[in-house]
Amino acid sequence: MKKKKAIVLLSGGLDSATCLYYALRRGYDVACLAFDYGQRHRREIEASRRLARINGLDIATVKISFPWNRSSLVSGGPAVADSSARRRRNLALPATYVPGRNTVFISHALSYAETVGAGAIFIGANAVDFSGYPDCRPAYYRAWNSLLSALGTKIKIKTPLLSMKKSAIIKLGARLGAPYGLTWSCYRGGDEPCGKCDSCAIRAKGFAQAGATDPLLVGKNAKR
Amino acid sequence: MKKKKAIVLLSGGLDSATCLYYALRRGYDVACLAFDYGQRHRREIEASRRLARINGLDIATVKISFPWNRSSLVSGGPAVADSSARRRRNLALPATYVPGRNTVFISHALSYAETVGAGAIFIGANAVDFSGYPDCRPAYYRAWNSLLSALGTKIKIKTPLLSMKKSAIIKLGARLGAPYGLTWSCYRGGDEPCGKCDSCAIRAKGFAQAGATDPLLVGKNAKR
Repeated sequence: MKKKKAIVLLSGGLDSATCLYYALRRGYDVACLAFDYGQRHRREIEASRRLARINGLDIATVKISFPWNRSSLVSGGPAVADSSARRRRNLALPATYVPGRNTVFISHALSYAETVGAGAIFIGANAVDFSGYPDCRPAYYRAWNSLLSALGTKIKIKTPLLSMKKSAIIKLGARLGAPYGLTWSCYRGGDEPCGKCDSCAIRAKGFAQAGATDPLLVGKNAKR
Repeated sequence: MKKKKAIVLLSGGLDSATCLYYALRRGYDVACLAFDYGQRHRREIEASRRLARINGLDIATVKISFPWNRSSLVSGGPAVADSSARRRRNLALPATYVPGRNTVFISHALSYAETVGAGAIFIGANAVDFSGYPDCRPAYYRAWNSLLSALGTKIKIKTPLLSMKKSAIIKLGARLGAPYGLTWSCYRGGDEPCGKCDSCAIRAKGFAQAGATDPLLVGKNAKR
């Protein structure tokens, strides 16, 4: 039987890596899609390429420009705030929010899926331990699936991690053999995770609650 | 009173030019958005820049890459078929269809609109005299507006030309003063409209039915 095709949005972070291994375990013939939008954390892109390569998968890296963008995720934007600073200032939307980002990502995935005949688009979005982005909510993905129907395609967006806690995602990834040591979550662009941004904070909490050690930090601690 | 802001998707064709003049007449403070996706008809991009410039409007040109794309609208793809050849072969979707194109365009417009605080995105989509693209249908735009609601934005997609015949669009544009001599519709990349592709055929029929002369062809005929 011919395998079902799927596109996996692969940012190189912990969630998208788990999502990739989930799709592979479900038997999909996967092609990966990564984005280069000038993000500070360019190690993300390297991480996603490595994850594709070790699985022998195609990966398309699409360069995206948002000429109007001032988000702190993008080189040239304001500095990334510490997670604690953001809570102190009680910001509704983090400065790392890139307007329309997931919508732009999914629209490209749609183009890719339609072209290669994939019936599913996997995205590791998560509505529980997330940074407060409006494009990580269940209603948003339901609306996307309605839009895909309106287009007359049979493509569905799959969000297997949407209602999972970060610790549950990490346990799932561990069962599936996702190599978290090859992933990258930190919003800052350093050689090592900063340990202080939103993304590092959420990741650390997840590993702690899962009772697991983040393999990405093992080398870091060993060096100290 | 402060003017309402809008983004106008400006391809440089006849419909988007009419849509621009419609939005301006409705009193919007307009910023234009054009796309460079490697299209053969790069005169489109020049046309949209000129239309923005003569109105003193900002225009962002976003470079988009579809590494998986084989459409004949893109340099390197198969040649553009004549309108008559396509009818002969009874193709359901024209080879000029770029999968997900309008979805990618609108998602960028969303990002732009959210960033500059625009409440409307105008797109000159047309479901009557169109080339058979699935992303020119009313249900598709309704689905987009549901998606924008799900995102929690107040941004609305406006499609004033959606159910108008091409001849009615041309009459509207004439009333609004849209300079059709500065627009470009031909799918092929020549110095002059080929007169044979889908887009030229639809344009010619529209002008004929409107009882008007296409100013773009006046110079061409004069040269003969």
